Amino acid sequence: MYRSHNCGELRTSHINTEVTLSGWVQKSRDKGFIVWVDLRDRYGITQLVFDEERTEKSLIAQAQKLGREFVIQVQGKVIERASKNSNIRTGDIEILVSKLEILNESILPPFTIEDETDGGEELRMKYRYLDIRRNPVKDNLIFRAKVTQEVRNYLSSDGFIEVETPYLIKSTPEGARDFVVPSRMNEGQFYALPQSPQTFKQLLMVGGMDKYFQIVKCFRDEDLRADRQPEFTQIDCEMAFVEQEDILNAFEGLTRHLLKEVNGVEIDEFPRISYDEAMQRYGNDKPDIRFGMEFGELNAVAQHKEFNVFNSAELVVGIAVPGGNNYTRKDIDKLINWVRRPQVGALGMVYSRCNEDGTYKSSVDKFYDQDDLAKWAEITGAKPGDLVCVLSGDANKVRAQLSALRMELAERLGLRDPKEFAPLWVLDFPLLELDEETNHYHAMHHPFTSPKPGQMELLDTNPGAVKANAYDLVLNGNEIGGGSIRIHDKETQAIMFKHLGFTPEDAKAQFGFLMDAFEYGAPPHGGLAFGLDRLVAILGGQETIRDFIAFPKNNSGRDVMIDAPAPIDDAQLTELSLKLNLKS
Amino acid sequence: MYRSHNCGELRTSHINTEVTLSGWVQKSRDKGFIVWVDLRDRYGITQLVFDEERTEKSLIAQAQKLGREFVIQVQGKVIERASKNSNIRTGDIEILVSKLEILNESILPPFTIEDETDGGEELRMKYRYLDIRRNPVKDNLIFRAKVTQEVRNYLSSDGFIEVETPYLIKSTPEGARDFVVPSRMNEGQFYALPQSPQTFKQLLMVGGMDKYFQIVKCFRDEDLRADRQPEFTQIDCEMAFVEQEDILNAFEGLTRHLLKEVNGVEIDEFPRISYDEAMQRYGNDKPDIRFGMEFGELNAVAQHKEFNVFNSAELVVGIAVPGGNNYTRKDIDKLINWVRRPQVGALGMVYSRCNEDGTYKSSVDKFYDQDDLAKWAEITGAKPGDLVCVLSGDANKVRAQLSALRMELAERLGLRDPKEFAPLWVLDFPLLELDEETNHYHAMHHPFTSPKPGQMELLDTNPGAVKANAYDLVLNGNEIGGGSIRIHDKETQAIMFKHLGFTPEDAKAQFGFLMDAFEYGAPPHGGLAFGLDRLVAILGGQETIRDFIAFPKNNSGRDVMIDAPAPIDDAQLTELSLKLNLKS
Repeated sequence: MYRSHNCGELRTSHINTEVTLSGWVQKSRDKGFIVWVDLRDRYGITQLVFDEERTEKSLIAQAQKLGREFVIQVQGKVIERASKNSNIRTGDIEILVSKLEILNESILPPFTIEDETDGGEELRMKYRYLDIRRNPVKDNLIFRAKVTQEVRNYLSSDGFIEVETPYLIKSTPEGARDFVVPSRMNEGQFYALPQSPQTFKQLLMVGGMDKYFQIVKCFRDEDLRADRQPEFTQIDCEMAFVEQEDILNAFEGLTRHLLKEVNGVEIDEFPRISYDEAMQRYGNDKPDIRFGMEFGELNAVAQHKEFNVFNSAELVVGIAVPGGNNYTRKDIDKLINWVRRPQVGALGMVYSRCNEDGTYKSSVDKFYDQDDLAKWAEITGAKPGDLVCVLSGDANKVRAQLSALRMELAERLGLRDPKEFAPLWVLDFPLLELDEETNHYHAMHHPFTSPKPGQMELLDTNPGAVKANAYDLVLNGNEIGGGSIRIHDKETQAIMFKHLGFTPEDAKAQFGFLMDAFEYGAPPHGGLAFGLDRLVAILGGQETIRDFIAFPKNNSGRDVMIDAPAPIDDAQLTELSLKLNLKS
Repeated sequence: MYRSHNCGELRTSHINTEVTLSGWVQKSRDKGFIVWVDLRDRYGITQLVFDEERTEKSLIAQAQKLGREFVIQVQGKVIERASKNSNIRTGDIEILVSKLEILNESILPPFTIEDETDGGEELRMKYRYLDIRRNPVKDNLIFRAKVTQEVRNYLSSDGFIEVETPYLIKSTPEGARDFVVPSRMNEGQFYALPQSPQTFKQLLMVGGMDKYFQIVKCFRDEDLRADRQPEFTQIDCEMAFVEQEDILNAFEGLTRHLLKEVNGVEIDEFPRISYDEAMQRYGNDKPDIRFGMEFGELNAVAQHKEFNVFNSAELVVGIAVPGGNNYTRKDIDKLINWVRRPQVGALGMVYSRCNEDGTYKSSVDKFYDQDDLAKWAEITGAKPGDLVCVLSGDANKVRAQLSALRMELAERLGLRDPKEFAPLWVLDFPLLELDEETNHYHAMHHPFTSPKPGQMELLDTNPGAVKANAYDLVLNGNEIGGGSIRIHDKETQAIMFKHLGFTPEDAKAQFGFLMDAFEYGAPPHGGLAFGLDRLVAILGGQETIRDFIAFPKNNSGRDVMIDAPAPIDDAQLTELSLKLNLKS
């Protein structure tokens, strides 16, 4: 037996107990006549003491040789500490060691195993197994396990059945970003790894499974943006015989449960907003509503003067920055430079200071009088002491720019409190999205998403205006889940395929087995998938998903610890009936 | 709202309630003046009634047009049934329908959706989404979900943390059966899909995670034997600071919990047997101990006469077949032919009838007298009325042959009751296994398995005799789990690698990152992995894992429903820097 207790559980009630502990040497302090060693395991830290008066000399000598991260086993007696440490749970006691065994030595770690480490990102990734010993990483992984267990318990008790769908599936021509897997037994043929279990969960609904969920890895071979992973985890859900309202209720319930159990936060009813309204009020389909700064559209009160920049703009829109009148001229110039950065792309920014005395001072006083500026303040909700920032131009672009500014200012103003949680449903997403390169519409969600009732006619006249039974769940400015009510009847599906530019033959080739399945009594159904990595990070009060993944990959899709991907040898390629065809 | 209740929940207490139900038409009976429809969903079947006296004519006409597997929604009143059906939970009531809507039609299914179906295996696999509608398949999937949820709850409450390890890992030269995944972003390089998360779980132990588990898909690209799948699910577990005894206790606890919660069977302590003893008593390292028929070794009482077949054999071994004296001469001849089949491979079989009067009649009476045969009966435990079957030859081969016969006879005698559960630990597996082709030893489990204390010396003199800290958990003659205590110190590991024929360079190339990790204070650790598919099947009283997998693949590794694997187009190959290199 390696231990009678772990390093986090001994208290004053254990005083005088003989115990055996095992763990890692966190650090030691050697005063010559007395040596303290902090012994660490997953559960905590317990102080070991070796001193001249009570410990054999040879044992002290042994203790003096212990290095950081040595793995040791000790026997000893729990005693009361002379100077207690209220920062750790075992701080009232220490172990007077009577026996010490080194279970394994350690060479010097490449970075210190402390909450605040001196190791950079790259180094910590290469030695991830050491990084995991650090509390912040370890606690994140334990937190993730707790969240997934809560998800499973909640959904299971709500009648959802977890069903494992296959990982070795079929690549479709649409699946340009599929990872493929050559089959040795089926020469020249390939499986694909699922980008999501979408078709399988729909088939489970056709199969009468009624309520399905799965916490499942998904895969996408795409150029990785910051904080994306080639493999990621979804909480994938689907329900039969449901309308949108049933889905929203089911997963609002789940999210509310998580917020309560995991964060101790009780939220009554999640607000709902349409996609159009979200774009109008926040310039964003995943607005962070922990703070205000809602958009005020100023066309009516800014396009009646000789200011051509505004007059020629499709949209003039502003936000009120709380306390922004404190900004110096230099601060504001910096802000203007910030919105002009290529990542944001605004041409400039107009501002109006709201003075405490009720007057205004704007960068466009030449064109606008106090009455005009008062209206800007009124529409953006600016109070004395605030600053109104105004952008103008093409509506879609200017909304995205102002949204970026809104988020940046909120960050600077400390309005994005990671301990505050503001969930929001965004409803009525557009069914179709215009691909500007090809000038073709394609499905915003996927081709089985159902349009809202009575909107089919619009498909011919104004396809971009058709709204779908599609919804996202947003938390603190991040999309944490999204889904839709699916089409389940052949006629609607045929019309959809036609409008998406599929010939019946194309449709059959790509979605044949699902369309076949729909011939045999498909029930009305719909679902939702949460991005688990993101959800866990946000519930954990952070935004970087990598910190919540045990062995993440870097931005090139590499695991730098195991050094993958890597070349494979020719024999293996030959057996797979493949040859390299390198471009370079 | 599609339904107020599901099809399994209405009882007499609901009589006179107005309800809305949705589901599939299981079948209908049309007597002209009255139509009954069985409406089915995941939860059960509810009878709908339409009759001349109480139902509008047009509604009856509608009902008469309903085909099997149509999806419908009905409104109506719960009424008491005239003739109750005690076979179903809703059998006391029926619904007098006032409104009927067809939600979706169905063409005629390729097989009947009934518990006993007319569909063959191939057809049911192709239309698996229809097969899942059948109770036996649906119930298996629900059963699997229940088992996994029990596993998670038990392990989580025991302090195990579920950690997701990566699916896109690195292929090793040892991994000849790895599925590989070309990386588009890293030209000419490949990931591999894990055959198990072995190295990652060991790294998690190095990382201080202490107790880890994961229910995880694993992959092996090998020629599929019957009832193997290229993707399969493991309950993967690892613990730090443990000895073998700790692991056995932890997972015996889990298995006992499952047997109790899932099967209502209480089993106190699991018997333990060494590998050597299992081979000696059952000829098998995964003996089914639901029944006896233990091996009796007869060398001492069968090699003293002139019977050369026995005298030249390394091992003469028999079993007593309960009641086998009833077999006719023809039955016994058939049995002899059965053991001579190439799949079993015995050259012949000697038998001795144990007559009710205490005399014996054997196929070798020419050589053996009644005293000899009495000893055979004594050693095999045969009673009057039994039949002693004796095989002889090379010890390893004859044990395997007699084990096959033992299992076959138990099957015929109905001794393998799927409702009875007999778990068993098999301990002290050999560390090394001789590869007869290359005449080299390789690790039976994996190269990190630790030898039993004090056995390292044997590595030089008699490598095949070295026993490992390796164990299997056997249930009803199936290995449901296996694991080992790992090596965690460099010296032992170096010796092991040497004996496995690795140069230090080879070892570094294949296991470099794990060996690096072991430099930084690796704790003693060990673990176990359950094969979930098999475990669930056995707990479910069956032995075919395919029946417990939602979308299984066939023996060629194909998913016949989605028709995967499949060719991919040249553009996709080019983008992956690959070319086909077909052999044919």
